[in-house]
Amino acid sequence: MKPANLLPRIAISVGDVAGVGPELAIRCANLPEVTQRCQPILYGPRDCLTRIANIVELPAPSFIRDIGQVDSVRPGEFSAATGKASFEAFDAAISDALQNQVAAVVTGPIQKEAWHRAGIPYPGHTEVLAARTGVNDFCMMLTSTELSVILVTIHIPLAEVPGQLNPSSISQAIRLAADAMQRRHKRTPRIVVCGLNPHAGENGLFSHGEESDLIAPAIKQCANEGIDVIGPVPPDTAFTPAMRSSTDAFVCMYHDQGLIPIKALSFDDAVNVTLGLPIVRTSVDHGTALDLAWKGKANHRSMLAAIEMAVDLARADVV
Amino acid sequence: MKPANLLPRIAISVGDVAGVGPELAIRCANLPEVTQRCQPILYGPRDCLTRIANIVELPAPSFIRDIGQVDSVRPGEFSAATGKASFEAFDAAISDALQNQVAAVVTGPIQKEAWHRAGIPYPGHTEVLAARTGVNDFCMMLTSTELSVILVTIHIPLAEVPGQLNPSSISQAIRLAADAMQRRHKRTPRIVVCGLNPHAGENGLFSHGEESDLIAPAIKQCANEGIDVIGPVPPDTAFTPAMRSSTDAFVCMYHDQGLIPIKALSFDDAVNVTLGLPIVRTSVDHGTALDLAWKGKANHRSMLAAIEMAVDLARADVV
Repeated sequence: MKPANLLPRIAISVGDVAGVGPELAIRCANLPEVTQRCQPILYGPRDCLTRIANIVELPAPSFIRDIGQVDSVRPGEFSAATGKASFEAFDAAISDALQNQVAAVVTGPIQKEAWHRAGIPYPGHTEVLAARTGVNDFCMMLTSTELSVILVTIHIPLAEVPGQLNPSSISQAIRLAADAMQRRHKRTPRIVVCGLNPHAGENGLFSHGEESDLIAPAIKQCANEGIDVIGPVPPDTAFTPAMRSSTDAFVCMYHDQGLIPIKALSFDDAVNVTLGLPIVRTSVDHGTALDLAWKGKANHRSMLAAIEMAVDLARADVV
Repeated sequence: MKPANLLPRIAISVGDVAGVGPELAIRCANLPEVTQRCQPILYGPRDCLTRIANIVELPAPSFIRDIGQVDSVRPGEFSAATGKASFEAFDAAISDALQNQVAAVVTGPIQKEAWHRAGIPYPGHTEVLAARTGVNDFCMMLTSTELSVILVTIHIPLAEVPGQLNPSSISQAIRLAADAMQRRHKRTPRIVVCGLNPHAGENGLFSHGEESDLIAPAIKQCANEGIDVIGPVPPDTAFTPAMRSSTDAFVCMYHDQGLIPIKALSFDDAVNVTLGLPIVRTSVDHGTALDLAWKGKANHRSMLAAIEMAVDLARADVV
């Protein structure tokens, strides 16, 4: 085991303090499986985090980057003040990551409405990352103990998916998936690319040519670059147990093609990873769960998995 | 338990005799969980079925409707003769069902290429059913121990799905799902309807209006008719364990929306049910598995589940 001062420092922006983010971050920061692999640093208002730690009867976290100010807050009652604080903590974590002060950023759940009330000019985390890093074509990966999926398109109407696909965006997703899985598993990963249509188009019978004209060329290009990648496979048989056991990541053409299987199969341990950024960023896959806040009852599996994934993906050259 | 002569008679067309269909039908026809609930009748060439039963060391089936003629056949080697025989057996089973001689038809796997070689003017089972029953707007349901899904559209390019949806086809699928689940469970079932778009359109943000203009009106209409139906729900959270446990059937807008979760979750026990026909028809969810034929090794779970589902759905007035 590395000495503690050589473990990677992981920034955890705690999310909205009126939600379950702080207690999950505090609980995870106390877990030996976390502290043996990294030095977690909580980003958020110290007074508030100390108060929540007391309420949920956990030791106050060792490392807090004291950001944001929330004078009075009650569990579940978000406000402009909690929104401003969660934005400032996230923003500081990005700055520290860009300056190599931390090896990765893990984000707790924010309340988007609180950001809106605080006049924050971004709807959510993703838009801040784009603005702060200058990268707009990053990819969303969701990963759980059962499978990992990378999405070529995300939040657009299904009718617009076929028109949005192109060999460049598909090969970019394949490369980002292969790179992330290589870092995670320290070996050449196997990437599987799904078709768009039923039966992957059944040789053109149920297709407008997306498999042959857009997806297959992207796969060929990436295979030529040395990536272990196959497809396009029929989407419905892609996620069977046998396929999952031989696949490190699935490249999916649209939101629900990837999210349906991961949410059907996962056990509250899914993690959201933003690929293609100059920094490592992972996130819990749940919201603020306001009704559970400060009760010490929220499930920390997704937060723990997000921290572990951040450590897996952290660049070796940033401590 | 009913006396054997009052149990529903179930026609099992054994499929292509060069494949695994015959041995699966023979094995299932010998299982007490089958013979206690129905009288299975195998439709196919008697000589051939008896020979296969000997080879796989199972008792020859008690009831065979001797249809088709295959002079010589070896395992895995389909031909025009095996194609003609599997078509004739299926066709006879439909006739008997239409004349109330049997309460349901269960189909084993055919080899479509063998039908083609025999000059059968239909590409597969479905087209024969349409021609023989005069029904063209039937629905495909897939069901397993984990969940049941009904498909509003099936084998069309994804790009054509939004344009193919309309309130009439969606409400028809809801009604057929509710009717089948009522017969299966003998109580009012809960039907969940998926949206088309990510997050079910997020209030129109990721939608071309399909949820509000097409899906919601169909749900409202069916609810007014007394069906316990909710939706449109976000497709990615529709199939979580909590949702599955409270849902009898999911109405899905396209092939992979329903088939991805059922194939990811099922354990070789999925059954294909054709809803909307004047007869009950279920089918195994696998092919002829030519390389496994006549070895006695093929998994009979899907065939068993197809028989059990046929008995569940069989009309009480047909014995």
